[in-house]
Amino acid sequence: MRDALEAARLDALVVRLPENVLLLSGFWPMIGATTLVFPREGRPVCIAPECFLDETRASIWEAEIRSFRFGILNSPDTGTAIGDALRDISRGKGWKRVGYEGSFGSMAPSWHSGEIWIPSEQWRGFYEASLPGCELVDATTLLQSERRRKTEYEATKLRIAGEISCIGMEAFERAVAVGISGVELAATVEREIMVRGIGYKGASRVRGYAQVATGAAESAAGYRMHEISTPKALANGEIAMLELGVVADGYWADRTRVRVAGTPTDEQVRIYDTVKRALEAAVAAIRPGAVGGEVDAAARSIIEEAGYGKDFFHVTGHGLGFAYHEAGPCLAPGATHLLEEGNLTSVEPGIYFAPFGGIRIEDDVLVTASGAEVLGPFRKSLTQHS
Amino acid sequence: MRDALEAARLDALVVRLPENVLLLSGFWPMIGATTLVFPREGRPVCIAPECFLDETRASIWEAEIRSFRFGILNSPDTGTAIGDALRDISRGKGWKRVGYEGSFGSMAPSWHSGEIWIPSEQWRGFYEASLPGCELVDATTLLQSERRRKTEYEATKLRIAGEISCIGMEAFERAVAVGISGVELAATVEREIMVRGIGYKGASRVRGYAQVATGAAESAAGYRMHEISTPKALANGEIAMLELGVVADGYWADRTRVRVAGTPTDEQVRIYDTVKRALEAAVAAIRPGAVGGEVDAAARSIIEEAGYGKDFFHVTGHGLGFAYHEAGPCLAPGATHLLEEGNLTSVEPGIYFAPFGGIRIEDDVLVTASGAEVLGPFRKSLTQHS
Repeated sequence: MRDALEAARLDALVVRLPENVLLLSGFWPMIGATTLVFPREGRPVCIAPECFLDETRASIWEAEIRSFRFGILNSPDTGTAIGDALRDISRGKGWKRVGYEGSFGSMAPSWHSGEIWIPSEQWRGFYEASLPGCELVDATTLLQSERRRKTEYEATKLRIAGEISCIGMEAFERAVAVGISGVELAATVEREIMVRGIGYKGASRVRGYAQVATGAAESAAGYRMHEISTPKALANGEIAMLELGVVADGYWADRTRVRVAGTPTDEQVRIYDTVKRALEAAVAAIRPGAVGGEVDAAARSIIEEAGYGKDFFHVTGHGLGFAYHEAGPCLAPGATHLLEEGNLTSVEPGIYFAPFGGIRIEDDVLVTASGAEVLGPFRKSLTQHS
Repeated sequence: MRDALEAARLDALVVRLPENVLLLSGFWPMIGATTLVFPREGRPVCIAPECFLDETRASIWEAEIRSFRFGILNSPDTGTAIGDALRDISRGKGWKRVGYEGSFGSMAPSWHSGEIWIPSEQWRGFYEASLPGCELVDATTLLQSERRRKTEYEATKLRIAGEISCIGMEAFERAVAVGISGVELAATVEREIMVRGIGYKGASRVRGYAQVATGAAESAAGYRMHEISTPKALANGEIAMLELGVVADGYWADRTRVRVAGTPTDEQVRIYDTVKRALEAAVAAIRPGAVGGEVDAAARSIIEEAGYGKDFFHVTGHGLGFAYHEAGPCLAPGATHLLEEGNLTSVEPGIYFAPFGGIRIEDDVLVTASGAEVLGPFRKSLTQHS
């Protein structure tokens, strides 16, 4: 990271998005009011709400912690408190160019997810007032690039998120049956992830986001980013498709599995098998130096040969890790970038058309020195018996 | 709203935060890529991702819908698509001043909660390029003020959220027992809200955010904005405190209840009763024209008289409705603003100190023409028998 700052001629970074604070400090803040100052030289400083001091201390690496009263009577204005700390931290350092998060248009939630703090335009004003004489530089691309290449520490954390996602997929597969609704399946998966995920290999803040499409009409619409689970109950032979995001202490997994309630049709079995082969072909093509578009083609060509090319209308995979979706890599038609060791990508081919419905299978794949590693390996089968 | 635009000399508003789109269009977007153009004169236009067209049509009031391909192959860049639509919509209108969301530093999540799109600085650039000759005006205060006074339509939706929160509190109280953990209690509450809340009086997108502190050490820290539920199991005589956020189709409830597993101590009963009386006194003081600081004092004086003044170190209540926490009203010491019909405020006195622990009770109260209405009335008792 310090090399990246050197190359970008930045004297320091100031970040507030929870996932960027995690990236640079090891601490995943509760809310976006926590600010991390990461200088090119010297010790980082984390400006953190006093009420979360224990959690901040427990997981932060080397950063010094400065706290401010927050959320209770007689607390200072948050912007003023952070601005004052920033002014004090930067005093006498001679910083000329400081990077900040100017262009993040999408972000992971705070841990609580029910409420998010974002760096509004006023924050830029606080930075300007607190860093007189400094040029503020949008460091979004730099941070995204740093997030794209996972360290071994991060890979360990991401494996835990992947393994916890298996708890959710297991619960889903056990629960799929004639008569159960998408809402009940989603609620069951989220409950299991919370109960069994918290405490799993030391993970303390874990949450699942499950979306279950049931039946042909709902699953055919499954290419949307966000599905709505409904009270519609599964009939015999209907598809249930689980789209699952899991966050474990700030690190994400993104999985999809499909099951049929009761007896599948021949068409379901054939399409499921096509999607499964497409996924396996893409995983087999992943290695350092592979081209994004070629990995996409490995999956897409199998689906095209089976006659479903136009029904696979999204990318084969996207980056993830510090968020449910990240800037790179991207397994898409024509993508020319090379995969590098440490990249993490979803691989999620799918076929969707009416009146059949939709089938997608999704794993998260880490690019390793020698090839690819699926994080949280989990069986791929359409029924209990296939 | 049009009067507010007139008073602010704004020709139009452009908004993207999901809760602001809801406020102005009746539609709660799936993600923040949905943009609403709300002119002072003429029909609003909702610029929406094509894949969510059905949901947009189903709940939008009078706004015209323009869609763009999103999230699938050959989709345009989102900023470009929205910029183009905005340019087209504003052409020939002669707009001079347009309001936008410049200063929201905290926001409600998208429905999915797992990932949020925010208006980054680039969006201001898109607006500038698409609205040549227009002055862009930060409309945050205007929107917050509009959100503060709930209409009868909004009150109906907020009642539903309040009633769904009762499903969660009921599940919590039934489950509290010696041996159950905070994580299990939280997961049980969230599951019940999802399963029974979706479909309740027509609500279709419902989610609970439960945080359960168990025992003295955890509940004494309960004044923090976000508690972390842990696997610590309840022992006989220990407190379980549920902090619960519920969102139902974009409208929020914020509740707290406390139960003791097994037999409570005299001190727990006495402090619970003090907090309960403080809550009831504040609710009794709420009516149009009441002063924020006086409602706070109604609750605070009871806690002070009982000798726990310093242990109630947060405000008595905050605004909510379009988000878990909103800009106003605020029931705090010295607050001078007057409550108005349509305001919605939490009332949440609490007492927290070590080694005792913490007890808070919280209801949401709507200011009505004649006084106050608790949304989703629910019993207040420390045990099954009290």
